[in-house]
Amino acid sequence: MDQLCINNGTILTMNRAGEVISGGALCVENGRIAFCGPAASAPPSSGRVLDARGGLIMPGLINGHTHSAMTLMRGLADDLPLDQWLNEHIFPAEKGLSPEAVYWGSLLACVEMIRSGTTSFCDMYLFAGEVADAADESGLRAVVGEVLYDFPSPSYGEIDNGFRLTRELLEAHREHPRVSVAVMPHALYTCSRSLWERAGQLSADYGAPLVTHLAENQAETAQVRQQWGARPLAVLEQLGLVNRRLWLDHGVDLNQAEIERLAEAGVRVAHCPESNMKLANGAFPLPEMLAAGVKVGLGTDGCASNNDLDLFGEMDSCAKLAKANRLDPTVAPAAEVVGLATSRGAEAFGLPGQLGVLEKGALADVIVIDTDQPHLTPMYNPLSHLVYAARGGDVLHSVCHGRVLMAERHLETLDQAEVMARAKEEAARLNGCVPL
Amino acid sequence: MDQLCINNGTILTMNRAGEVISGGALCVENGRIAFCGPAASAPPSSGRVLDARGGLIMPGLINGHTHSAMTLMRGLADDLPLDQWLNEHIFPAEKGLSPEAVYWGSLLACVEMIRSGTTSFCDMYLFAGEVADAADESGLRAVVGEVLYDFPSPSYGEIDNGFRLTRELLEAHREHPRVSVAVMPHALYTCSRSLWERAGQLSADYGAPLVTHLAENQAETAQVRQQWGARPLAVLEQLGLVNRRLWLDHGVDLNQAEIERLAEAGVRVAHCPESNMKLANGAFPLPEMLAAGVKVGLGTDGCASNNDLDLFGEMDSCAKLAKANRLDPTVAPAAEVVGLATSRGAEAFGLPGQLGVLEKGALADVIVIDTDQPHLTPMYNPLSHLVYAARGGDVLHSVCHGRVLMAERHLETLDQAEVMARAKEEAARLNGCVPL
Repeated sequence: MDQLCINNGTILTMNRAGEVISGGALCVENGRIAFCGPAASAPPSSGRVLDARGGLIMPGLINGHTHSAMTLMRGLADDLPLDQWLNEHIFPAEKGLSPEAVYWGSLLACVEMIRSGTTSFCDMYLFAGEVADAADESGLRAVVGEVLYDFPSPSYGEIDNGFRLTRELLEAHREHPRVSVAVMPHALYTCSRSLWERAGQLSADYGAPLVTHLAENQAETAQVRQQWGARPLAVLEQLGLVNRRLWLDHGVDLNQAEIERLAEAGVRVAHCPESNMKLANGAFPLPEMLAAGVKVGLGTDGCASNNDLDLFGEMDSCAKLAKANRLDPTVAPAAEVVGLATSRGAEAFGLPGQLGVLEKGALADVIVIDTDQPHLTPMYNPLSHLVYAARGGDVLHSVCHGRVLMAERHLETLDQAEVMARAKEEAARLNGCVPL
Repeated sequence: MDQLCINNGTILTMNRAGEVISGGALCVENGRIAFCGPAASAPPSSGRVLDARGGLIMPGLINGHTHSAMTLMRGLADDLPLDQWLNEHIFPAEKGLSPEAVYWGSLLACVEMIRSGTTSFCDMYLFAGEVADAADESGLRAVVGEVLYDFPSPSYGEIDNGFRLTRELLEAHREHPRVSVAVMPHALYTCSRSLWERAGQLSADYGAPLVTHLAENQAETAQVRQQWGARPLAVLEQLGLVNRRLWLDHGVDLNQAEIERLAEAGVRVAHCPESNMKLANGAFPLPEMLAAGVKVGLGTDGCASNNDLDLFGEMDSCAKLAKANRLDPTVAPAAEVVGLATSRGAEAFGLPGQLGVLEKGALADVIVIDTDQPHLTPMYNPLSHLVYAARGGDVLHSVCHGRVLMAERHLETLDQAEVMARAKEEAARLNGCVPL
C-alpha cells in the first residue's frame, strides 16, 4: 500500500497522556501509523501528502450505534409518541425496504459520515449484507449485523434464515481488514428466549460481539419485567450473556449495581444522547458509567430519531445533556467527551489502543479539522472547540485504514451526486414516503 | 435602493397559515418585500438575482440574547462551576477589554451570525457603541445596549456615565433603520433599586426595551429573595417594570402564575437552551410559556457559554431539551421551534409581523438554505430538517433590510479574513488570554 503523510497541523493524539504535538506530522504505511510526532523528526516520504493547513489532526470518530439506511427516513416523522412513530410510520416504511434501498441508504449514510469525520461505525439493520457492501465500498470501518427478532423480517423472513444469514456474513468477513460482523438480536421485548440462546451461542462460536438495544427507557424496563420477570440486565445475566462480547445500545435505565456489573464484565455501551432526547427516553447515567470504568462510546442512532449522523453535534449534546441532567456544569468535561468518540469509544468498539488514538502502530484512521473559520476563532483549547463549537462540516480530510476517503472536502471513494440521487429514488419508492 | 429578487426555491413564509410556496420567487424594494409568491406571477425585475438553487427561502433567524464580543472568550473556560467560571476567568478577561476589542469581537460575531443565517440580534455588552458600529457596518439588524451595574464598569466607570452613554446611544440611533438601542440593567443581583428606577424611567422616556437577565436558575432566585425579599418577577412588579418593554433573558425559574403574568403583560422572553444546559441552569418551562402565549424567542447567549452563535443548532437543542425535560417527545414540535427563531421570535424582538415572516410589506430579512446536501437528503418536511438536520453552514445567501450580506457563502459587507485576524490579535491582548 502507498505511503501517506499528513503534515502542517497540531496533532491531538488522544493517548493516555493526552499528548498534543504542535507542528506535527503523521505518516502511514500499510493501513497503520508509521510515524506520529514533530514534523522535523518525520522520516522522508515519497508518498502522497495531505496539508492540514494549520488545523487539528486527530483520530477519526467512532459511531457506536446507528441504523445507516434509515437516512431514507430522515425527517419522515418526528415529535410523536414512540408507539405511534414506530407503528404508524417507521415499521410501515420498513416493510417496503428492498436490498437496493438499504444499499443506497447505507451509502448515503457513509457519505454523511465521511464528510462529518466518522471513520468507524456499528450498524444494526435489515439486509445487513448490503450494509457490509456499502461499508466495504466506502472505505469506512464497520461492525454490521442483521437485526434479529421473532416476527417475520422484511429481509430474511423466518428467524432460521436470519441466523443462517448472520452465519454467512460472519464467514464471509472473517478476513476483511475493516468490515466485521456481529450477532444482533433486536431487544429483549422483541426476541424469545430461544432466539437469545441461539444468538448467544453464535456470538460465542465466532467470538463475535452480541449487540442489542437495552434499557432504552423505563417503559422498556417495565415491559421486560412483565415479559421476563426481571430487569433487562438481570435477564441477560440469567441467559449467561453478560460478558466482554455484549454491546448495549442506549442503556439509559440502569442502576448503580447494574453499572458496576457492566464495568466488571467488560460490557460495552453506546450512549446516544440526541436520540435519547428526541424520543424523550430519560437521563443516561454518564457520570456513574465513567466513574465505574464502563467501556462507553457515543452513537447517533438512526436518522429517523436524531436526525443526522454528525458526531460533533453528538459530542456537544452529550456534554450539555449530562450537565443539564445533573444540574452540574462540571460533569462530562470536553476532554472526557472527545474520549467517548475516540480512545474510550475504541474500547467499546472492540479495538482498544488500535483505534481512537494517534500513535505509532495504531490503525491509520485519521481526520483533519479546518480550524481557520470564524466559529472556531480564537482557539484557546482544541478539545473545547471539538465539543462546543466544531461541526461535521469542519472536517477537511478523512483517512481510514490508511486510505484517503476525503481530501479538501472532496470524496474519493464514493460518487456523492450518484449516491444522493439513488437514495432519493429509493426513498420515493418506499411505501408512503414521497420526499420533496 | 436597488431591486433584488431571489428565485428557484421553496418559500417557507412562516406566516400564520404556515404557507409554503414551491417554485417561489421573492422580490425586494427599499428594504421591504415587494412580492412573495409563485415565480410565474412575479413582476419583471431589472435588479440583482440570487439563485436559491432549489433550496429553501425563509426568514432570517432572530437571536434574542447574546453578548457578541464574547467571541473573544470562546472556549477560554468551560466545564466549571458558575462562580469560578465568572470570577476566575470571565470577569478578569473583561477587565482588559478595550473599545477595539469589543469592536473586533462583535464583528467576528457578525461574520459568524451572517454565515449561519442570523439576520437580527439583541446584544448586551460593554462598549455598546462599538457593538452598534459593528452591527451597522455588518448590515445586520440589532438591538444593542450598554450593560449597567453598580460596580465600576470596565467601559464607562461610574453608573452615571453608564446612563449618559445609554442616553447618547438612544439619541444617536433614533433614525437608524436597523440598529436600535435598549436600556440594559444587568440583573437584579448586580443592580440597586436606584439603578432599576433610573433604568425604568429611561426606558419609558424613549419607549425603549428594558432588557435584563432574570430567573436564570434557582440559585439566582434564592439570592434575589435574600437581597430584595421577593422572587425576581415580583421585584420587577414592585418596581412597576412588568410591561411590554420588558425583555427577559433566560427566565428558567418561573412558576405558572409568573408565566401567565408575562403573557398578560406582553413581556418578551429570550430562551437560551444551550447556555442553560452548559451552565446547568435547569429546565426552561417552554410548553407552559407557549401555552400561555408568552412572546418567546431563542437566544444563543455569549460564546463563553455556548460556544457558538448558530441558531440552527439552538433550534435542535431547544426541541430536544424540551422533550428530554418533560419525558414527552411531542412537546416543542419542529414547526413551533422554527417559529421561535422567526415569526414568534419577531414578537419578542418587538417587530411582530414585520420580521420573521415572508409576506409583501414585511422587512426584507431573508436567508436561503442549500438543501442539496447529503445530511438533508431526502427531505419529507422542510421544518423538520431546519430543526433536526440543518446547520449554520447550510446557509447559502443572506439578505437583511434588502441588502445582500452573503451570496454563495461569500460575505459582501465584511472582510472575513481581516475580521478574524484582528479578533485574534485582540483576544491575545486580553489579560491572561493567549489563544493558539
